Amino acid sequence: MLIAVDASGGDYAPQEIVKGAAAAASEYNVPIALLGNKKILTMLAGKYEKKTNLSIIHAPQTIACDEQPVQALKAKPRSSIVIGVGMVKEGKASAFISAGSTGAVLASSYMMLGKLTNIQRPALATVIAVNPEHPFILIDAGANADCIPAYLAQFALMGSVFAAEHLNIEKPRVALLNNGSEEGKGNRLTRESHQAIKLTPGINFTGNIEPQDLLANHADVVVTDGFTGNIVLKTLEGFGENFGKNVGWQQSHHIPHELQGSALVNYAKVLFLTKRADYKEFGGACLLGLDGNIVVAHGRSKAKAVKSAIHLAVRAVELDMVSSIKQAMLKIAQNTAQE
Amino acid sequence: MLIAVDASGGDYAPQEIVKGAAAAASEYNVPIALLGNKKILTMLAGKYEKKTNLSIIHAPQTIACDEQPVQALKAKPRSSIVIGVGMVKEGKASAFISAGSTGAVLASSYMMLGKLTNIQRPALATVIAVNPEHPFILIDAGANADCIPAYLAQFALMGSVFAAEHLNIEKPRVALLNNGSEEGKGNRLTRESHQAIKLTPGINFTGNIEPQDLLANHADVVVTDGFTGNIVLKTLEGFGENFGKNVGWQQSHHIPHELQGSALVNYAKVLFLTKRADYKEFGGACLLGLDGNIVVAHGRSKAKAVKSAIHLAVRAVELDMVSSIKQAMLKIAQNTAQE
Repeated sequence: MLIAVDASGGDYAPQEIVKGAAAAASEYNVPIALLGNKKILTMLAGKYEKKTNLSIIHAPQTIACDEQPVQALKAKPRSSIVIGVGMVKEGKASAFISAGSTGAVLASSYMMLGKLTNIQRPALATVIAVNPEHPFILIDAGANADCIPAYLAQFALMGSVFAAEHLNIEKPRVALLNNGSEEGKGNRLTRESHQAIKLTPGINFTGNIEPQDLLANHADVVVTDGFTGNIVLKTLEGFGENFGKNVGWQQSHHIPHELQGSALVNYAKVLFLTKRADYKEFGGACLLGLDGNIVVAHGRSKAKAVKSAIHLAVRAVELDMVSSIKQAMLKIAQNTAQE
Repeated sequence: MLIAVDASGGDYAPQEIVKGAAAAASEYNVPIALLGNKKILTMLAGKYEKKTNLSIIHAPQTIACDEQPVQALKAKPRSSIVIGVGMVKEGKASAFISAGSTGAVLASSYMMLGKLTNIQRPALATVIAVNPEHPFILIDAGANADCIPAYLAQFALMGSVFAAEHLNIEKPRVALLNNGSEEGKGNRLTRESHQAIKLTPGINFTGNIEPQDLLANHADVVVTDGFTGNIVLKTLEGFGENFGKNVGWQQSHHIPHELQGSALVNYAKVLFLTKRADYKEFGGACLLGLDGNIVVAHGRSKAKAVKSAIHLAVRAVELDMVSSIKQAMLKIAQNTAQE
């Protein structure tokens, strides 16, 4: 296994990316290739003791977040994103992780890696563990802003496979994010998607879930279009950030000595929950539905988030997520053919 | 001024509604008519000392939340919702507040109160004060699940008038909720709405706002379709609820005696912020764009939220929100005619 990591993408690249990659290489005992400016990366990687697992691949071009993705990919064939996705395509890397332009990562992945049979649109799946006792998968977290019901039915299936494998849940409860719990509620897309998901075999569909119940252990997989999913994700992030800022814990992260007994326990809990909602702690999102493992990390990822994203990629490789999704789609195709 | 309050709608009706109405009648010195079962309400209202401002109107029928709104309105002409909206229509009440079926309140308001000129769809505007230093208006918070760009341009204008009057802001910053800050980002609706709002005269449009910045004082008015707005609102609620539950403060709400100094201050802040995100503290949403003042309160409203919703209604009446919106729409029509 070799994990390719984009060391030039993201707000805190390359320092925090290299730091996170070094920690992951050591902790998960996995070889990592850092993609970016060789000179700078060599210097940065040299700082870390256990650097034996780190290699460097020269990628002199960087795609900025405000560049038009498809044009940028054509103009910059030696960018870390093009090289990284190419390594996955050619089997030189088992997975590629980037905190750079999500648009460019998605576009290059769509263009270079094939879509799996019966998947019309790949989707981003992320684990939300704000409530640490009850993590759940959100799919699509932001790949497809405009969707049709058939896409959401495919997201439901991919999310179910992901939850079964990654969260180790036997029959994951799959729910559709909606603004009402009853079947007829919602906008046109959710009303029609409800029916489409209901008709999809092989998933344990439990109906609609309202956002106020997201953290209340009502579902293992929450299906939504990429626009709404991204809005929910960013709303949670903003809340965590604001909360942390207001109570001044983002800076300090220490427990004052005046605290005793239950107050101490509560204080620690708040600290933990605030950190959980912090984007810097999110572990990135898996792009599902393509013939290759791609993980998109938050643009503002610091070392800890980079490490988490690498962990997610390692899991996807170990669990062979691509084959699992392929098999699930094949099973459905066979079922449908038999009908 | 007489404020009509639906005492039979909502999860905690009639007790909490009467309690909240009694507190509002006393605190804001405003006469309130309670709509519901006369016998029960007479008994309940009798409990409150300062009850001189409370009157009771018999409304023997109740519309449940799972009833199809339009059918329910026809079948139950003596329901609190039909009578309450009717009072506003006939000028017998200055405003009507309900924590009952939102669908039925919206439908009866649409049918009985006229739409203001050049408003295609009324919208729900709510004040979000999770960050207490920087409250903002969210519009549409849930009235219109399926929207077109023209609706959002009208929401932007109504929201701007509402913020100017209610929050007393001279030139409210109006932003479009989107999953990217750049102009071309978003789904089809937000991309096209961006252009529609930009072309609308009389508003201080500042572009897109991403959800992680909602609590960071980037906008005074956040414009969105009713589906997305409702999702955001409920996501915030769910976070607050989960947070409160996890730290065990929803039940206790007391400050432990072990706390001193800065820990005490932080503890109080967390208490405050958690409560702010609690739906029970939200003040309801104003239905804007109709010829009459209607306030929709959360179904799970307790006395405090009912009191806040009544306060919002009193403000809308005092500020003559209907006329303000009428005038703003007229001004635009005149501008357009002159061009």
